[in-house]
Amino acid sequence: MKIYLAGPDVFLLDAVDIGQRKVELCARHGLIGLYPLDNPFDIAARDASMQTFRGNEAMMNETSANLTPFRGPGADAGTVYELGYMVGRGKLCLGYTNDPSCYADRVREFTEVTSRDGRLIDARGLTVEDFGLSDNLMMIHALDLHGCALVQPRQDPTDMQDLSAFETSVRMAAERLAAAHPRRPG
Amino acid sequence: MKIYLAGPDVFLLDAVDIGQRKVELCARHGLIGLYPLDNPFDIAARDASMQTFRGNEAMMNETSANLTPFRGPGADAGTVYELGYMVGRGKLCLGYTNDPSCYADRVREFTEVTSRDGRLIDARGLTVEDFGLSDNLMMIHALDLHGCALVQPRQDPTDMQDLSAFETSVRMAAERLAAAHPRRPG
Repeated sequence: MKIYLAGPDVFLLDAVDIGQRKVELCARHGLIGLYPLDNPFDIAARDASMQTFRGNEAMMNETSANLTPFRGPGADAGTVYELGYMVGRGKLCLGYTNDPSCYADRVREFTEVTSRDGRLIDARGLTVEDFGLSDNLMMIHALDLHGCALVQPRQDPTDMQDLSAFETSVRMAAERLAAAHPRRPG
Repeated sequence: MKIYLAGPDVFLLDAVDIGQRKVELCARHGLIGLYPLDNPFDIAARDASMQTFRGNEAMMNETSANLTPFRGPGADAGTVYELGYMVGRGKLCLGYTNDPSCYADRVREFTEVTSRDGRLIDARGLTVEDFGLSDNLMMIHALDLHGCALVQPRQDPTDMQDLSAFETSVRMAAERLAAAHPRRPG
């Protein structure tokens, strides 16, 4: 089973290294990890962003999406797009986050939140989704219905590069594969 | 043509009103707008979030996605998920934003950004996508290749509720429909 490794990992300074570690973890569980940075592209090219898009789209298969909050209270937009795309194509979708908190609590750290008529309202007057979920309900329930429930740690891992939640999601993918294609005894 | 009206509009305090205005604008261009809040659901129900997910998923058709920056420098995650899902299902995808700036400039307003080895780095040490695009390349080029290019104003509209960019995207959808199904003369 090929697993597309969606996530904001590509924006880390040690992006290549963490990609290699993810691919190795996949291999340890009998899976093939496909990392976006495996696509050769020329950052200086005029169409570098389109090259990246085409490379990623061609690579997308079953997916493990890193939904750890990125730049703000929620997940990285590119990862979320890719998760939606995979669900739309009927692929198995797995997701994990390294953050144990729920979305509304993270918005409270990000901006002032008040309560009005039973709803939470942020400083710009926008309501705050408050279902006790880790992030926007579309992603969380997409995983529930089109893959495996979000893997979320009980406590903060030491850093964004921590791969324990990722490894749990890879193990779940491997179990799904084994259940779908059981080996014959002997 | 039915157009699913994806966007953070549902989080506005006048969410129902803006939905009605969007549906009316669609009708003026001969299209049927489907607004997420048209789905009846019980906010107090234990499974309110899952009801919402299922309602939205059943409604998703061709789409007009409001990618105006939401809670942070980028678009609303639920909208981005839905855009990906539509592309995955091969639907016509349109998108607009009410913000004329590019992503990197918005990140600069959001957090400290420095330059290192030719790359932009934010305060947490994460690289900042810097292709001069309005948001993450996955969404922007998805629209280029699977719909119409993002509609973006040259200047800030007066407010998030401004529907001029939305109407432009609806007009583009109507033109696509007319081109695909030209009326017979006479």
